Amino acid sequence: MTELKNDRFLRALMRQPVDRTPIWIMRQAGRYLPEYRATRSQAGDFMSLCKNTELACEVTMQPLERFELDAAILFSDILTIPDAMGLGLYFAEGEGPKFRKPVRTEKDIEQLEVINTASDLTYVTDAVSTIRRELNGRVPLIGFSGSPWTLATYMIEGQSSKDFARAKTMLYTQPELLHQLLDKLALSVIDYLNAQIASGAQAVQIFDTWGGVLSHAAYREFSLAYMQKIVAGLNTESEGRKVPVILFTKGGGQWLSSMADTGCDCLGLDWSTNIGVARQTVGDRVALQGNMDPSVLRGSDESIRAEVGTILNSFGQGPGHVFNLGHGITPDIDPQKVKVLVDAVQSQSEAQ
Amino acid sequence: MTELKNDRFLRALMRQPVDRTPIWIMRQAGRYLPEYRATRSQAGDFMSLCKNTELACEVTMQPLERFELDAAILFSDILTIPDAMGLGLYFAEGEGPKFRKPVRTEKDIEQLEVINTASDLTYVTDAVSTIRRELNGRVPLIGFSGSPWTLATYMIEGQSSKDFARAKTMLYTQPELLHQLLDKLALSVIDYLNAQIASGAQAVQIFDTWGGVLSHAAYREFSLAYMQKIVAGLNTESEGRKVPVILFTKGGGQWLSSMADTGCDCLGLDWSTNIGVARQTVGDRVALQGNMDPSVLRGSDESIRAEVGTILNSFGQGPGHVFNLGHGITPDIDPQKVKVLVDAVQSQSEAQ
Repeated sequence: MTELKNDRFLRALMRQPVDRTPIWIMRQAGRYLPEYRATRSQAGDFMSLCKNTELACEVTMQPLERFELDAAILFSDILTIPDAMGLGLYFAEGEGPKFRKPVRTEKDIEQLEVINTASDLTYVTDAVSTIRRELNGRVPLIGFSGSPWTLATYMIEGQSSKDFARAKTMLYTQPELLHQLLDKLALSVIDYLNAQIASGAQAVQIFDTWGGVLSHAAYREFSLAYMQKIVAGLNTESEGRKVPVILFTKGGGQWLSSMADTGCDCLGLDWSTNIGVARQTVGDRVALQGNMDPSVLRGSDESIRAEVGTILNSFGQGPGHVFNLGHGITPDIDPQKVKVLVDAVQSQSEAQ
Repeated sequence: MTELKNDRFLRALMRQPVDRTPIWIMRQAGRYLPEYRATRSQAGDFMSLCKNTELACEVTMQPLERFELDAAILFSDILTIPDAMGLGLYFAEGEGPKFRKPVRTEKDIEQLEVINTASDLTYVTDAVSTIRRELNGRVPLIGFSGSPWTLATYMIEGQSSKDFARAKTMLYTQPELLHQLLDKLALSVIDYLNAQIASGAQAVQIFDTWGGVLSHAAYREFSLAYMQKIVAGLNTESEGRKVPVILFTKGGGQWLSSMADTGCDCLGLDWSTNIGVARQTVGDRVALQGNMDPSVLRGSDESIRAEVGTILNSFGQGPGHVFNLGHGITPDIDPQKVKVLVDAVQSQSEAQ
């Protein structure tokens, strides 16, 4: 493999010194970019874009052409695993992801099989190796997966949900059944992320989008325990280097200490968390990634620069910070504002 | 006024010893009760029910007839203040609250007038005094209001929202304008809650339903500061007794320490917070209210009892706990499960 020209992101994840704070942006290849919208309309629907290796590579590269970002992230969806399990993922216009065959009964769950990425999800590993070739060592490539709990909520509800009534009913009435589902998902995620790493992913992030809807006790038992199992099951040595693992539980700001004990390398923070307080909580156990409210990008250039300053100062001196938003960038953002953000992170963190 | 026969709830809010942990349930007069649905269909729509003193009193009493609850709560809506300001509140079937005239421009906000409860919201104070008469000292009556930030989000968006794009855009582009709106709302809430207290409310709760969507810094500046102003402006002596103030920010579990410094008496917790950790955080500054996930009520009787035990044990010995759900009870819950909950809180906390 080609030598990595910019390893600022990987070094920060391992809490090693860097010349300035690295930055990437969740959903950086997304609808706020006109060139993304053009490629997507060429591909057809969202999943067709994910499954088209060349186009998935193209959109992955697009934000790097515009902004000096320190990492690329595989263009894909968090729901590829349940799709590969046969649930029939589709995207209804303006409604988010849905499954044709949600998982509701004991029989549904018993019949699910742990995925084999090498045969079931080659479009993902193909995209990883194609993007790596195209990146040619420019910046590292991040692979990712949804967390077992997050995947389970979509699989049980059949779509996103306001209160996760079905998933939580299963949690409180048939916990063993939910554990059976989560176990199959954890094994699938391990296989999936290891395949991404073998194909060239240089860091991986687990998106626990819906862990925050649980009580602390339920989070530990039904979400965190499975993420811990995944961290333990990953082959995190590749190309002579550690592949760092990032855990991101949206709404998990109260549980950072137990998250830091999973053996992961970095915690993603949403914007409700004060990153300085988070750093005190986790100490030198993990790096931190985040955590600007994407809404700040709707504000003036000056207010963006001020918010960047607040976050950098709150984190303080020393290594272990990767700048990011606290959640994915939204489609309404002007790309020019992203340039202001990236420039602000670079110039202000260099000056520190 | 008649002597209060059960002051367990008020004593717990003031962190005084009680014989067992008091319990009430957010939205206890709600659609999960068949008798509520009957009264509501008699009244017409939701706001007609709020504005009909006799029927509002009737539904307030309904849960007390079924369950041994330790408090009643005024039947009303959090959006009465913006409605009184002329925004035209209505409820579209299955869609939640909406405003006919949302607040969008500088002129819209300048034209808003601080409400005068005595002339603009007599249906609320009439309901308070009617319910107090009907309660006849059985349990205390809770008055309430939405927080300024929460009211502002609905007023600016015109309805509930997923990401509060308009409200946050105002926050980051026209903060002074938002402060002007919040200031008028805070003055209105002070007037409104003082009028409820003067009419007989024996405790008040401020519902900050959407404070948790903010960053910590934005929460302090745009939500907490105004709740603090309200706490300072309330006449909390009535009928020779302190009227305790409860602050409830959904998703505010990371900010409990600053909330406890507002001068309020109790913090409401959603279920993402471990109540034992919260108690360590706030020490003897405030009481705590909460915090079972309403979804637990979809589970077996045994799992409800177990969850009650977990929460009571997590809080531990000593005064200052009011049991409640972490959010409003949902319409799908079987009332029989509420009986299991109330019995479990009573028997288990008596045994402690």
